[in-house]
Amino acid sequence: MKSQFEKKELKKKSENLSDWYTDVVLKAEIADYAPVKGCMVIRPYGFAIWETVQEVFNRFMKEKGVQNAYFPLFIPYSLLEKEKEHIKGFSPELAVVTIGGGEKLKDPLVVRPTSETIMYAMYAKWVQSWRDLPILINQWNNVVRWEKRTYLFLRTTEFLWQEGHTAHETEQEAVDMVLSALEWYRKIYEEYYAVPVVLGTKSVTEKFAGAKTTYTVEALMPDGKALQGATSHNLGQNFSKAFDIHFQNREGKQEFAWQTSWGLSTRSLGGLFLTHGDDQGLVMPPKIAPIQVVVIPIHKKGEDAKIIAAYCQDIKEALTSGGMRVKVDDRDEPSVGRRFNEWEVKGVPVRLEVGSNEASANTVTIARRDTGEKSTVQRSQVLVHTEKLLKEIQDSLFVKAKEFRDINTRDAATFAEFTKIMEGPRGFIRAFWCEDAACEAAIKEETKASTRCLPLDTDALPGTRSDSGVCVHCGKPAVHRWLFAQSY
Amino acid sequence: MKSQFEKKELKKKSENLSDWYTDVVLKAEIADYAPVKGCMVIRPYGFAIWETVQEVFNRFMKEKGVQNAYFPLFIPYSLLEKEKEHIKGFSPELAVVTIGGGEKLKDPLVVRPTSETIMYAMYAKWVQSWRDLPILINQWNNVVRWEKRTYLFLRTTEFLWQEGHTAHETEQEAVDMVLSALEWYRKIYEEYYAVPVVLGTKSVTEKFAGAKTTYTVEALMPDGKALQGATSHNLGQNFSKAFDIHFQNREGKQEFAWQTSWGLSTRSLGGLFLTHGDDQGLVMPPKIAPIQVVVIPIHKKGEDAKIIAAYCQDIKEALTSGGMRVKVDDRDEPSVGRRFNEWEVKGVPVRLEVGSNEASANTVTIARRDTGEKSTVQRSQVLVHTEKLLKEIQDSLFVKAKEFRDINTRDAATFAEFTKIMEGPRGFIRAFWCEDAACEAAIKEETKASTRCLPLDTDALPGTRSDSGVCVHCGKPAVHRWLFAQSY
Repeated sequence: MKSQFEKKELKKKSENLSDWYTDVVLKAEIADYAPVKGCMVIRPYGFAIWETVQEVFNRFMKEKGVQNAYFPLFIPYSLLEKEKEHIKGFSPELAVVTIGGGEKLKDPLVVRPTSETIMYAMYAKWVQSWRDLPILINQWNNVVRWEKRTYLFLRTTEFLWQEGHTAHETEQEAVDMVLSALEWYRKIYEEYYAVPVVLGTKSVTEKFAGAKTTYTVEALMPDGKALQGATSHNLGQNFSKAFDIHFQNREGKQEFAWQTSWGLSTRSLGGLFLTHGDDQGLVMPPKIAPIQVVVIPIHKKGEDAKIIAAYCQDIKEALTSGGMRVKVDDRDEPSVGRRFNEWEVKGVPVRLEVGSNEASANTVTIARRDTGEKSTVQRSQVLVHTEKLLKEIQDSLFVKAKEFRDINTRDAATFAEFTKIMEGPRGFIRAFWCEDAACEAAIKEETKASTRCLPLDTDALPGTRSDSGVCVHCGKPAVHRWLFAQSY
Repeated sequence: MKSQFEKKELKKKSENLSDWYTDVVLKAEIADYAPVKGCMVIRPYGFAIWETVQEVFNRFMKEKGVQNAYFPLFIPYSLLEKEKEHIKGFSPELAVVTIGGGEKLKDPLVVRPTSETIMYAMYAKWVQSWRDLPILINQWNNVVRWEKRTYLFLRTTEFLWQEGHTAHETEQEAVDMVLSALEWYRKIYEEYYAVPVVLGTKSVTEKFAGAKTTYTVEALMPDGKALQGATSHNLGQNFSKAFDIHFQNREGKQEFAWQTSWGLSTRSLGGLFLTHGDDQGLVMPPKIAPIQVVVIPIHKKGEDAKIIAAYCQDIKEALTSGGMRVKVDDRDEPSVGRRFNEWEVKGVPVRLEVGSNEASANTVTIARRDTGEKSTVQRSQVLVHTEKLLKEIQDSLFVKAKEFRDINTRDAATFAEFTKIMEGPRGFIRAFWCEDAACEAAIKEETKASTRCLPLDTDALPGTRSDSGVCVHCGKPAVHRWLFAQSY
């Protein structure tokens, strides 16, 4: 029989990122493989992160008047077909129900890969006048896009997400909505996950099937590959024309609604785990850590365990009242060393150790997960010190990830340079591109790098929109420097 | 073109409950029919109620250490088959995916009708020692049980629910869990929905497929039919044996885990809507009302709208700071009368009216949705008065529903009496039953009444377990009075 207290020997992040990632996600009890091809189980310790994301994102949305609702899991194929680009984009990934209640269905049902079509069939029914607009609806649900091989979080047949779907009187309002969602995604990544992102627009090839413009947040992973973090689409009137969502405008004329859709999925958690962490395991940014502080009582044989236990409980209560998520690990097995190891694998940001020395001197030993630093503080300072430490860890993880991203963002003036970077360290490459899809395909074929986005003017990458030059691949005139990378 | 301001002429609850129900759920914008057979859309105003249920129920669960997680939507048929009674119970209701990613699947996947099988396959992997127990996991998700005809909320192919699944060292611990969940359901129904319920155990015929004992909360609807409100199952070792969830116990011996599962679904919202409400529309119990107070500014032509608007805004802020969910309806269309009507249909518990009279006299006119009573209170008293009123409405709705339930709970000593009640007012019938399934089937065949439960000893139905007599149908000896009713 396998003992639950076997030492959790981790693969090393420094040796093989991909092996480490799978190993740590399983050993930290974040997720597990399910007995269904392409699917996984999100365990409580992983799901708690998603619950925090939901709470934060609901707050962002509700401030802008977006409300949650629920639409069916199944979509008749005929609905999905209505927007031509859309069905073309999703056909290869569909799961189809052909049997229901013991009978073969005349009209097979698709398990939603995304909900534009089923939602907009309803919007058409609900919208008649400009007074019915805007419609600002989001749903948190599960979607299915067929995958043969599972890569925990990053590639699974079923995943969880939020999908926001809005309809507006004017395109300006729609664009404003698209950019608000994009900013929410930036905040989730940068301020919660401590993962820096580049904001930009997708190329025609890479945009969402049926969108006019797709906006994206792109993150760089430690292996120099990019992760598409979340996308926000200006749908223009493509779907409103296909689904006949029209309204009488303020001038009394019939007009098609202007629409947006935007989504953030559990795939994002994969990016979070990949970015932080080390050979000892995960490192959770404090703002999304399910447990921010673990308190470990340490008593040697013959010592009074009760005094130490009470001391720990008292600290827990103080920190909890201060709004922190705290756990006391008072198990009698496994050994203290093994327990330290377990919480390190799980990436708990701060560990407090309390032995008889601490209890009698009225102190606590504090260990920081990200740097391993240890210090001793007075009991009376524990709350203030721990609060400060959590903020420091959050900031420091972001700074570290941003430094890595900035060092690994390079300009390529020639295709030789481009190719060399892709052979070598990879990372983000900024290069002029002629915006011809054939040229984009050739670059991908030859280097594995695809266009990630045309960055918006952000501080992260200043001036990327104002240049002009020649395409790094074909030499034709080009007006924008695009961001390239091999993508997950 | 249909005007959005058409007067919403409602069907009458007093004339036909079923027609009224469908009509009011649609017109109050709680839900809508979807373009998929058997499915529906939960609109924001309806979904907000479910969000409150989630918030409250998460609080109950977390206090007891139950954590949320997520398991796959798809279940291989082979897993579902492992527990024989279970598969027998669910086979007729399954939706099956046979095509994935453009290819015919060798192993078709069932869309989960419930998750015992997929979850317990994982539990078997996670449990080795008594130290791994208890496992206390819940998930909020969507499940599918095939239905041909939709009855909004009460009968839909897809519905949302929570499903809690636990594994324990001892049967006593499992029974304790089952009863805790049952008590949470009672609280949701009685303290939030203001719907009284009878707690009891199901007959062998009516219990969950695979359970040892099923506990239920049963509510009586205004048409004298019963709604099974939520169920909590003692699974014994049925599933742990089928799925091989065994552990080394404290004595070092191998033992199968003791399990429970328990669920509350969006079907419960149907019971809530049916119970309260009148010919004017829904009546929302304040504790789950998405909007508890609507403030309506009323200004005649030429009057200063700004003063009234500021007065309303000020009231809104005061009530919101007091923790209430408040909306100011300051639309310029439709007419005030129509707007009153809209909020009545939606069942908002309290309406505040502010015209120039109120603004100049520093008062507010308050209308109560459930009784229609109006009163005028001083501006300084609005917060205290509204708080008190919301409590009164919550209590009064429960008392009213309980009176109806008690009046409509009758004893039947003979089958003639039983039949007469079922022809006449229906409702709950208490009667001795021999506990033979054939007799139960005959009663159902002849009267449409099924056994709802064997009530636990509650104040609601005192003494129902301590009698003995003869079966109301066959005359054989019977030791318990069961609760019968026609069910939804």
